[in-house]
Amino acid sequence: MSARPIADVENARTSFARLLNPRAIAIVGASSDPDSINGQVLANLQARHYPGALYPVNPKYAQVGGIRCYPSVEVLPQAPDLAVVLLGAARAVQVVVECGRKGIPFAIVIGAGFAEVGGEGVQLQRELVDAARQHGVRLVGPNCIGMMNVPDNVFAGFGPVFGLSQLRAGGVSMVTQSGGFGFAVVNMAEEMGVGFRHVVSTGNEVDITSLDFMDAFVDDPGTSLIAGYFEGIRDAVRLPAIARRALAAGKPVIAWKVGNSPEGERAAASHTGNLGGSAKLYQAAFDQFGWIRIDDVHELVDCANAFARGKLPAHGGVGIVTVSGGAGVLLADACAAHGLGVPQLSQATRARLREVLPAYASPQNPVDVTASILNDSGLLRAALKVILDDDAIASLIVVASSVEGAAADKIAAELVALDAGTPKPLMVSWSSREDRVGGAYQLLRAARIPLYRTPSRCCRSLAALCRFSNAVRRQARDGVLPARVAMKAAAPLAVANEFQARQLLAQYGITPTREVLATSAADAAAAATRIGFPVALKVQSADIPHKTEAGGVKLRLTDARSVQAAYEEIVASARAYAPGATIDGVLVQEMVEGGIEVILGAVNDARFGPAVMFGLGGIFTEVLDDVVFRFAPIGLEAAHEMVASIRGAAVLHGARGRPPADVDALARAIVSVSHLIEDHGGEIAELDINPLVVLPKGRGVRVVDALIATRTNQPNP
Amino acid sequence: MSARPIADVENARTSFARLLNPRAIAIVGASSDPDSINGQVLANLQARHYPGALYPVNPKYAQVGGIRCYPSVEVLPQAPDLAVVLLGAARAVQVVVECGRKGIPFAIVIGAGFAEVGGEGVQLQRELVDAARQHGVRLVGPNCIGMMNVPDNVFAGFGPVFGLSQLRAGGVSMVTQSGGFGFAVVNMAEEMGVGFRHVVSTGNEVDITSLDFMDAFVDDPGTSLIAGYFEGIRDAVRLPAIARRALAAGKPVIAWKVGNSPEGERAAASHTGNLGGSAKLYQAAFDQFGWIRIDDVHELVDCANAFARGKLPAHGGVGIVTVSGGAGVLLADACAAHGLGVPQLSQATRARLREVLPAYASPQNPVDVTASILNDSGLLRAALKVILDDDAIASLIVVASSVEGAAADKIAAELVALDAGTPKPLMVSWSSREDRVGGAYQLLRAARIPLYRTPSRCCRSLAALCRFSNAVRRQARDGVLPARVAMKAAAPLAVANEFQARQLLAQYGITPTREVLATSAADAAAAATRIGFPVALKVQSADIPHKTEAGGVKLRLTDARSVQAAYEEIVASARAYAPGATIDGVLVQEMVEGGIEVILGAVNDARFGPAVMFGLGGIFTEVLDDVVFRFAPIGLEAAHEMVASIRGAAVLHGARGRPPADVDALARAIVSVSHLIEDHGGEIAELDINPLVVLPKGRGVRVVDALIATRTNQPNP
Repeated sequence: MSARPIADVENARTSFARLLNPRAIAIVGASSDPDSINGQVLANLQARHYPGALYPVNPKYAQVGGIRCYPSVEVLPQAPDLAVVLLGAARAVQVVVECGRKGIPFAIVIGAGFAEVGGEGVQLQRELVDAARQHGVRLVGPNCIGMMNVPDNVFAGFGPVFGLSQLRAGGVSMVTQSGGFGFAVVNMAEEMGVGFRHVVSTGNEVDITSLDFMDAFVDDPGTSLIAGYFEGIRDAVRLPAIARRALAAGKPVIAWKVGNSPEGERAAASHTGNLGGSAKLYQAAFDQFGWIRIDDVHELVDCANAFARGKLPAHGGVGIVTVSGGAGVLLADACAAHGLGVPQLSQATRARLREVLPAYASPQNPVDVTASILNDSGLLRAALKVILDDDAIASLIVVASSVEGAAADKIAAELVALDAGTPKPLMVSWSSREDRVGGAYQLLRAARIPLYRTPSRCCRSLAALCRFSNAVRRQARDGVLPARVAMKAAAPLAVANEFQARQLLAQYGITPTREVLATSAADAAAAATRIGFPVALKVQSADIPHKTEAGGVKLRLTDARSVQAAYEEIVASARAYAPGATIDGVLVQEMVEGGIEVILGAVNDARFGPAVMFGLGGIFTEVLDDVVFRFAPIGLEAAHEMVASIRGAAVLHGARGRPPADVDALARAIVSVSHLIEDHGGEIAELDINPLVVLPKGRGVRVVDALIATRTNQPNP
Repeated sequence: MSARPIADVENARTSFARLLNPRAIAIVGASSDPDSINGQVLANLQARHYPGALYPVNPKYAQVGGIRCYPSVEVLPQAPDLAVVLLGAARAVQVVVECGRKGIPFAIVIGAGFAEVGGEGVQLQRELVDAARQHGVRLVGPNCIGMMNVPDNVFAGFGPVFGLSQLRAGGVSMVTQSGGFGFAVVNMAEEMGVGFRHVVSTGNEVDITSLDFMDAFVDDPGTSLIAGYFEGIRDAVRLPAIARRALAAGKPVIAWKVGNSPEGERAAASHTGNLGGSAKLYQAAFDQFGWIRIDDVHELVDCANAFARGKLPAHGGVGIVTVSGGAGVLLADACAAHGLGVPQLSQATRARLREVLPAYASPQNPVDVTASILNDSGLLRAALKVILDDDAIASLIVVASSVEGAAADKIAAELVALDAGTPKPLMVSWSSREDRVGGAYQLLRAARIPLYRTPSRCCRSLAALCRFSNAVRRQARDGVLPARVAMKAAAPLAVANEFQARQLLAQYGITPTREVLATSAADAAAAATRIGFPVALKVQSADIPHKTEAGGVKLRLTDARSVQAAYEEIVASARAYAPGATIDGVLVQEMVEGGIEVILGAVNDARFGPAVMFGLGGIFTEVLDDVVFRFAPIGLEAAHEMVASIRGAAVLHGARGRPPADVDALARAIVSVSHLIEDHGGEIAELDINPLVVLPKGRGVRVVDALIATRTNQPNP
């Protein structure tokens, strides 16, 4: 079982076109029983007018579905682009070999009974992968239910959605690890109006993975929105690069990720043999790249509607206009909960609104234009225009409440006209029943104006737009930072002790405390005098990992004499504690006081790769797990967002009577660590600056303790 | 503007029947224009066959809606039970007077222009209240849109819902402060299948409040579920008692509360003149009494469906059965997120399942019975029975996934039969389209088996059942604790200094540190010897609120001599700091070390009344606001839930290498403080034990510092 692709990723990506839109398909194991899975695939392809050649393969039949059936893959008149393999696990392995020999580049292995059942299945899965590699066949599955390409009428799978007589085509491409549930989502979303393009179920993902398909969707001109249903992403190390490409292409990604709890992870293991991995790192990926996380089908539908219009808000300031006040209260709350602003309108805007609106209407945001505006839809247009002109407003939610009948049509027409004349996204919450609004809903839908029946769903969808838009802007801004010279060392990293670790950090601009490595008591005293009192002394030895235990640390030394005495004591203690130890010296270090201790680190996660980590010290990390990750490298804006996103962020902004901390310097240090782990990800297993002291505004940060564990060495002490 | 009811609450409650189901109604300001609000109310009552007498009142008409119209309330042939007042603010005040004179007990004032618009409106609202009080009329509104009683055909209001030709009757009664949005919710929920009984919009709530109606719904035999849409609850002090009655009556409450953010609160103020109040206290009320909080319409619908079957789970252990694995992963996650358990099945259950299920099915919870079970629905029944027999399982979610056609009908029939034979709630997630399942959905609905299209909604609804069920059980268990003697003091509380505050706490069984009030240095030394070293000394004086500043505190004194010296120093410093101060003495107190410092307090909130508060000290409260409230009195189970609900709870259970704290003693102390604030709520404004030290398991808690502020006095020092 391996997630490594058989062929080169670049080639695979460019050639996926033949998988997703094959010119001919072999259905191996096709049956004439339309109630069986083996009968459904061919029947579905035929019923939905697949335009290419179809080759049923089954030695039992001369004909299936009214066309010639072949006894084996070998005797097919040509090598089709795709084979759908509808056979038991053991037979499937053999057929993949035959496909390779025939020159068929892609096979979808539907059948289960592989790694997800354990035991013998694990061995069969290994054989399947070997067969595919040896014979040059790229695999989808096994343990999946197929794929569909709606606009091109390729319905190569089984189950209810494949049997639908009419499916609307659209720009949403989706990959799902769970075939059954994923296609149930597609079924429901389609019923609610979403048009799909590609839908692929990947099952056990022994070769082509979810990320392969997402990568392909980024390049697919017909895909405007990418959706994924994941139980776990084994090749997550590729996620950041693909996500960055999606952002650059302006394609939002909607992620439904399950298997987050221990219970869910256990269930996923027995379903597709997949394991969840760190929920924190998934969340980091979703946050960093603006992926929109959903937990239910209607959220997918709502997001698809929100993005279909193609407008993005320039910032998070939302204007809310209601024809009755209640929904305004709800929306103001909902915006706050989703991190959107409901800014005050400018004085000029309010003055202009007062001219337009009835006297008892409220010119404050949320703006209650009152139901009386229904008598004059021109008033509504005028009011909305005034609000849209305000720079504080980047998007507008219009709540048409329960408006019905003729007024509904008029309002819809006004909204369509208004929407056409502004680059700012307009979203509508309208709770009336479809049969009471005349053609109003149709009119809005035709103009692709996002329409929701409740304010809650409307606001949540706008939040998704803002989240994506924000990630696009952040990537653009962080991407235009001055280029830097990567500092990949030619020689292996020398970070055997803390001093060397701190030197490496200093090379990346992360200021250590002022410090000198002293090798005699007199040196130490002289160094302390230069550094300025008080100082700390710490023994430096690769052989003494626990300095304090060894009596190797003395703090708050206030004069030269006590430094000298401390030096001798430390060396004596260290020798007594670890008789054979090589002692490199004693570090004389300025004592940093009056700052806030944070933890800045980096990991090289087995699944996700190099990431930078930030959190506050003490109970924030130990009890509350209040830490945040981002994948390296990041820019300053992302670093500031990391800092802002921890729950204890207030501590840095002057809580508990302290002066505000130098958050700018902290953000720069986070960026630097992300560069360091990017440059040395191959060598560094883990990096921990704990604590990094963030001094008051303008005074920077100081590395007090740093630990770097390389892949080959033990952690330095 | 006052929220105090005009008549006695008990009387009002018993007499609300005439308001909710009036025998005759006057429509004051009725019009013959069916497009106007004034025309709609009468038209709606007539169209929906209101069975009582209708009296339009309008001097402009002789007839309206085909019946006699009266020039004034005065000349009506009888006093109807209810007047619906459709007039401007100033006229409405006058009509309320006339209603009172006529003997009409209830009036719904529809019109706006009162406190919500500010200025003159505030004065008009005051006049409206005065008129109602003086003339004995109970008011609904103003600034509302009326009410409906569906089974009795009372549709006394305006707007789309009132005009629907067919509304299903059911057991859901709802009160809403926002008429427009509230009835939009009703409109959508009804469309999705919810049957309503009473729906009342209360607008500005100058007299009859939301809680009055909820209180009435508790006693209404036709109401099985109570829903409320709130912007703010002014008379929240009544909430605990009403919520307790609802729990005792077995009626769940669904609360949609808006106005939680500063933005939302501002919007609410200009909508119904209501203010939010502390979000923490609302949350406390919802948590304490098992109210189910919702944010969208489908959640109301889903909850109503969940409760309609009338079964409650005995505990939070959920069995999950799927016909395909994917949904199991999702549900395991969702259960974890909602605090539900997905317990291991017993060995016996697993053995029995293995006998019943196909070999490749998983007998682990979530149980994947595999699609092959569709060929033999008897197998499904057998498997579900086995799982339901397991004591670890209190409720069952069955995921029928995308099953269609004949198999759908068979499964539905099996589920109905199974559900009828078990007291455990059964819920179904089934994603197929309605037109593809034959009569399956109808069959389930007829049996009131909760049916959801997605696992997410299914799980959330089950969580609501569990939350309510848990609150019912908690109230029952906490309610049967041994009765206690309330200790309401006859004389005013004497808590002028800390010593007295601690004495009061000791009376309630909350152990202070061992301590003695000494009045000489020799006394102090003798006391310290009795108490055991180390001790702390603290000056006691009502005139010295800041003891430390005054040099009035000495800590960690380890022998008699240093106690004597410290006594003298403290007294000298205190005299120097506050020359005229009366010094009661110096408290000699054991030093408590090795415990965990928490904050235990009580407030007497202006809106909500007496509540007990708990949180961890330091950054948990100062930065994270990680505190929890409950309304007094509470029992041990509620106290334990308070402790478990804070984010930093792990600190008490042995985080950071400490021994587990005595949480049982902490819970007892919380209960005691709830009794204290219950007994003395009238006198105590605020009580703070900060810190209360929770010692390791079995060693109890100690009050280190306590402050009690009475309503009349300054806080004691």
